[in-house]
Amino acid sequence: PDRLSFAHRSELRQAKRIVVKLGSAVVTRGDECGLALGRLASIVEQVAMLQNQGREMMIVTSGAVAFGKQRLRHEILLSQSVRQALHSGHNQLKDMSLPVLEARACAAAGQSGLMALYEAMFTQYSTCTAQVLVTNLDFHDDEKRQNLNSTLQELLRMNIVPIINTNDAVVPPPEPNSDLQGVNVISIKDNDSLAARLAVEMKADLLIALSDVEGLYDSPPGTDDAKFIDIFYPGDQQSITYGTKSRVGIGGMEAKVKAALWALQGGTSVVIANGTNPKVTGHVITDIVEGKKVGTFFSEIKPAGPTVEQQTEMSRNSGRTLASLHPDQRSEIICHLAELLTERQEEILAANKMDMDLAVNAAMLNRLSLSPAKLNSLAIGLRQISVAAQDSVGRVLRRTRVAHNLELEQVTVPIGVLLVIFEARPDCLPQVSALAIASGNALLLKGGKEAANTNHVLHKLTQEALSMHGVKEAVQLVSTREEVEDLCRLDKMIDLIVPRGSSQLVRDIQRAAKGIPVLGHSEGICHVYVDANASIDKVLKIVRDSKCDYPAACNAMETLLIHRDILRTPLFDQIIDMLRTEIHAGPRFASYLTFSPSEAKSLRTEYGDLECCMEVVDSMQEAVDHIHKYGSSHTDVIITENEDTAEQFLQQLDSACVFWNASSRFADGYRFGLGAEVGISTARIHARGPVGLEGLLTTKWVLRGDGHTVADFSEHGTMKYLHENQPVGQPLAGQRDSN
Amino acid sequence: PDRLSFAHRSELRQAKRIVVKLGSAVVTRGDECGLALGRLASIVEQVAMLQNQGREMMIVTSGAVAFGKQRLRHEILLSQSVRQALHSGHNQLKDMSLPVLEARACAAAGQSGLMALYEAMFTQYSTCTAQVLVTNLDFHDDEKRQNLNSTLQELLRMNIVPIINTNDAVVPPPEPNSDLQGVNVISIKDNDSLAARLAVEMKADLLIALSDVEGLYDSPPGTDDAKFIDIFYPGDQQSITYGTKSRVGIGGMEAKVKAALWALQGGTSVVIANGTNPKVTGHVITDIVEGKKVGTFFSEIKPAGPTVEQQTEMSRNSGRTLASLHPDQRSEIICHLAELLTERQEEILAANKMDMDLAVNAAMLNRLSLSPAKLNSLAIGLRQISVAAQDSVGRVLRRTRVAHNLELEQVTVPIGVLLVIFEARPDCLPQVSALAIASGNALLLKGGKEAANTNHVLHKLTQEALSMHGVKEAVQLVSTREEVEDLCRLDKMIDLIVPRGSSQLVRDIQRAAKGIPVLGHSEGICHVYVDANASIDKVLKIVRDSKCDYPAACNAMETLLIHRDILRTPLFDQIIDMLRTEIHAGPRFASYLTFSPSEAKSLRTEYGDLECCMEVVDSMQEAVDHIHKYGSSHTDVIITENEDTAEQFLQQLDSACVFWNASSRFADGYRFGLGAEVGISTARIHARGPVGLEGLLTTKWVLRGDGHTVADFSEHGTMKYLHENQPVGQPLAGQRDSN
Repeated sequence: PDRLSFAHRSELRQAKRIVVKLGSAVVTRGDECGLALGRLASIVEQVAMLQNQGREMMIVTSGAVAFGKQRLRHEILLSQSVRQALHSGHNQLKDMSLPVLEARACAAAGQSGLMALYEAMFTQYSTCTAQVLVTNLDFHDDEKRQNLNSTLQELLRMNIVPIINTNDAVVPPPEPNSDLQGVNVISIKDNDSLAARLAVEMKADLLIALSDVEGLYDSPPGTDDAKFIDIFYPGDQQSITYGTKSRVGIGGMEAKVKAALWALQGGTSVVIANGTNPKVTGHVITDIVEGKKVGTFFSEIKPAGPTVEQQTEMSRNSGRTLASLHPDQRSEIICHLAELLTERQEEILAANKMDMDLAVNAAMLNRLSLSPAKLNSLAIGLRQISVAAQDSVGRVLRRTRVAHNLELEQVTVPIGVLLVIFEARPDCLPQVSALAIASGNALLLKGGKEAANTNHVLHKLTQEALSMHGVKEAVQLVSTREEVEDLCRLDKMIDLIVPRGSSQLVRDIQRAAKGIPVLGHSEGICHVYVDANASIDKVLKIVRDSKCDYPAACNAMETLLIHRDILRTPLFDQIIDMLRTEIHAGPRFASYLTFSPSEAKSLRTEYGDLECCMEVVDSMQEAVDHIHKYGSSHTDVIITENEDTAEQFLQQLDSACVFWNASSRFADGYRFGLGAEVGISTARIHARGPVGLEGLLTTKWVLRGDGHTVADFSEHGTMKYLHENQPVGQPLAGQRDSN
Repeated sequence: PDRLSFAHRSELRQAKRIVVKLGSAVVTRGDECGLALGRLASIVEQVAMLQNQGREMMIVTSGAVAFGKQRLRHEILLSQSVRQALHSGHNQLKDMSLPVLEARACAAAGQSGLMALYEAMFTQYSTCTAQVLVTNLDFHDDEKRQNLNSTLQELLRMNIVPIINTNDAVVPPPEPNSDLQGVNVISIKDNDSLAARLAVEMKADLLIALSDVEGLYDSPPGTDDAKFIDIFYPGDQQSITYGTKSRVGIGGMEAKVKAALWALQGGTSVVIANGTNPKVTGHVITDIVEGKKVGTFFSEIKPAGPTVEQQTEMSRNSGRTLASLHPDQRSEIICHLAELLTERQEEILAANKMDMDLAVNAAMLNRLSLSPAKLNSLAIGLRQISVAAQDSVGRVLRRTRVAHNLELEQVTVPIGVLLVIFEARPDCLPQVSALAIASGNALLLKGGKEAANTNHVLHKLTQEALSMHGVKEAVQLVSTREEVEDLCRLDKMIDLIVPRGSSQLVRDIQRAAKGIPVLGHSEGICHVYVDANASIDKVLKIVRDSKCDYPAACNAMETLLIHRDILRTPLFDQIIDMLRTEIHAGPRFASYLTFSPSEAKSLRTEYGDLECCMEVVDSMQEAVDHIHKYGSSHTDVIITENEDTAEQFLQQLDSACVFWNASSRFADGYRFGLGAEVGISTARIHARGPVGLEGLLTTKWVLRGDGHTVADFSEHGTMKYLHENQPVGQPLAGQRDSN
């Protein structure tokens, strides 16, 4: 054709002329009792919005049959003097037996009502519509086709949305259809091919075909192995198995695909998606036009690399081999990666320079920039991780002699597939890779666009290191094109998400990740409580360090709580003098003051800057209550010389980190001596506070018997439970033997 | 009044006559650019459905102003020869400055269009509508009021939905309004009082007032302490602080509450809810009528007990004290509860008899029934838990000397507030309570209705035991009236949900619990793989035990995998003979067979009965692949005499429990020797497989310093990190000192 369809979803944003095809399942409700009014209204809303953006929208609609059926049924019921039936209650209307209604008559009867509805709805958006009835034959007659074309062009020119339907009244009677069991309407085929023909004829950029299926699967949905197809290439067609059943009014997936491929060949991109899913209907069309992963996208150009789903599969498989390696082998891989970071630094720095040249500001330059010194210290860190790798996977945590010859072990194992999302800093890539390798996990990495070149090289080196033990594919770098939101939807494939970056990134991911656990913290509202018995020196040192050392950190102090007794003391003045930060006063503190700093808007604010909130409390107990109420359970500090008060605080306060006479800034994996840090977690389960390698591990239970059954242990059985705890010193037999 | 409003949400199902009030925020979109068509259509859909159920529905609608504004603006723009503007692209319409439009003129211009839209929409549901325009004054004139009343009665009698709006054209001009910044329409007050008057006049059972707020808060939403009010009692009014700001077109919360109280006094129940939340709009009205916790419910009768939110708060506070007790004290509470179970058995059994008398079938009787023997063994179990309690909370897991005088400990602490949902078995209550007490957690218990009397007594005894150390409120029994779904929404208050019961219960709760972790398993697709080198005796014993010992258990075998080599052997025949269960053949197994059992519909089926699937594999490796593909990572078994094969299987297979020559039925906390069992988890993080007390614990980090700051450790600082691991033998100082 003279036009080419779009190669990537992201290009769909450029689509100017768009055909939206509504299958009858979208327009009518599942129970066939009427129109899916809310659904239709949402779709009209989206089409009108896109039209108002300056796009040229066309609608190909089904549903006139159901509409007419509803109307005719009503007429017939009324003629059966049905007022009583209407009053006698529940579902009467549905239960009454009705004659089989002819589809073409239904369509004719329904057409006017359907159009009136579209018109009423579009009017709300000041958008004009026009009704166009066509038959497939109109496309075969050149003159008719040209007439249709010029009419539609004229409508589009006048900013009118053409609403196109088949002129069913003039088509031949439908053939009896095997799909018909139990439904008293004779179906006519959906408008798939009509929409495709129209889209190509009108040189539309995009055809969105909405029905009640999510899109295309490689086998009939619901079967064991059915996989959803995100992007369909014409060459892949033989790998699809179509189901034999199709529902009434839906043209069947095979027909849809045929029509889609026809449109694609004609230069129109196609997306087949679900227009009936209540969770997305309100934005399915706009999402598609924004390039989001919705439905199945048809593309002529098959990209060179694997899809992210294939990458996940590859990394899981390769990760399983990685997990079964000897700990020494995992250490070797990490050491080799450390070597490559220094050996191949020229290559790395060259790629890094390309990224730096594109950086837009100094802050980004700073985050992006690598240097021989940085690579060197990265390598040192990696060697530390390689040591930790010796004692991570396969550690026996518990060993129990359940009975004679029945031995139970609880052993550490990797969690599975990790998705780590990081922003501009490329040094994150080897660090995170080393952590994943040390813990035997498969890893998907998603880095920022800004560091694409550096990340590419670093990932290549990581795979080179992995290759030495045949597990190259365990660490995958996801294309920067993939949306974080789309990745977070792979909940059947990914076991844990670790965001590394700003708290905004963490928050976004926690919101997006439905069903996948996220290891991280989004808030750090840390408190320092200055007790009545605090040492002046310690207060000044610790408060300054907690707030000013690095104010943007999550473990920086946000609220300073002060015991009432020190309000009018020299210590108080010294604290105020020292804190050269903007101070917001809590309501109680404000009431004590003669000078007046601005009142804090909320006692739950994370300032993340040289700004903090001050509040007064009567006692250690009140400080604890305040922190429980307004804190984020991250890190909280008491400064006091009274050991009893301190121990009460440490014991009562329910935060991930509780400190006595030490800066809140110590809440950090490295400072805690955990070696490599995965992150800081404010979740209550799994891992809490600074998380080391063990946050990437889970356990499994291994039971070795000799034909034991639970029946042996029943009342009349021959065996008794011993449940003797054994020492856990030795390595797991399986690990020992595997080399 | 002559009528009483409903006391509980659950009674709303009986509401026959319902007024639905749509605030203008519901009818118009946030950006004031048009109608919220999808929203309106969903609401029409719900009203029509309820009408078809035989209820009498009335709508009080706002929105004519915005509707007319849209229309007038369009007219004005057209008169400014705006065709060009429409074509020149994005948002042109919005940006053009327009004269201020008078609200009453807008309302008049909008009325007909709004009615046409309602009519077109209701027509789809074969529902007639009628337009009624009223003013507040009409209610003050007795004759007018009676005329209105009889007109509406007649409409309802004819099954017509009256759509009521204020006749704004005849009201006095609106006063200038301080809400108006930046919006070029003069607002008129919402129809709150009109709807309330109408509801009382028509003796409606329920008034649903939809706007763009979730309902009522005790302080302006967004402020630090604002709490949502689920049920509002007239006496509580003084405890509310209203905000000063109200948005255009919304009558303000104070006016809404005033109107609601007026209706309530007149005998009409009221719910104020959000009609603009896209997640719930499609079912907000039907949810309310079904008695679900949506919005704020107004009730005249204040129930005696605390709300579930108050219970959660009480249990959290009391739980914090429980957690700070000495382990011996927690043990004492559990032992005392054990004593009470035997000492007070008459009381317990009397309550139990009341429940049993109401039981509907033998299975339920069996689950409900307690006996002196059962209570005795419950008491024995509790004493075991009391021993475990000695070593749970406050255990030091890691101790590090970070630097001179800077000591770090990682200590076990309770998770926080647990919600345990259990079905008919009342023995669950003391068991779960003991587990929570042993781990220092606060506990909300939600039991089945069938065991209400027994649960009540058992809970009373639990609180009696807790009272001995002043923590009575740590364990709360939630009213059976509370819906599980509503409890699962308390994500800010509950830290972990533990469902105890059928896998259906677990599945339902996993679905409902958004944002709260659920400890449990919903699926157990367990495999037994019979290797080529298996011992005949062990195969027969283990396969029988795994499948037949208790087929409904989650750890029962569902799929038997057989090595190809034993297909034609006597062992194979013996297995088939022994398995007196229905066998479904996997596709490969089916192809080998001369006799033909039915083919398995899916290799992922959990039969839960004397039924299983059989499939053939070529090797141990293929068995592992099969299990990874179709299993649920619960428990999988290999039967072989070859140790190498066994160890490879144990090592490669990624399931929570992997067994060699032992029945899958051993996957159980008691059989594993964990003492009390919390449940079995198939999650990958936190706890996996059978979970003991430690599944109810998390950790915190305690750092004791002497004025340390991270600056001390910087390049130019005076201190160095030591990170020396210390032995963890001694108890936590805080624990030691607390008594």
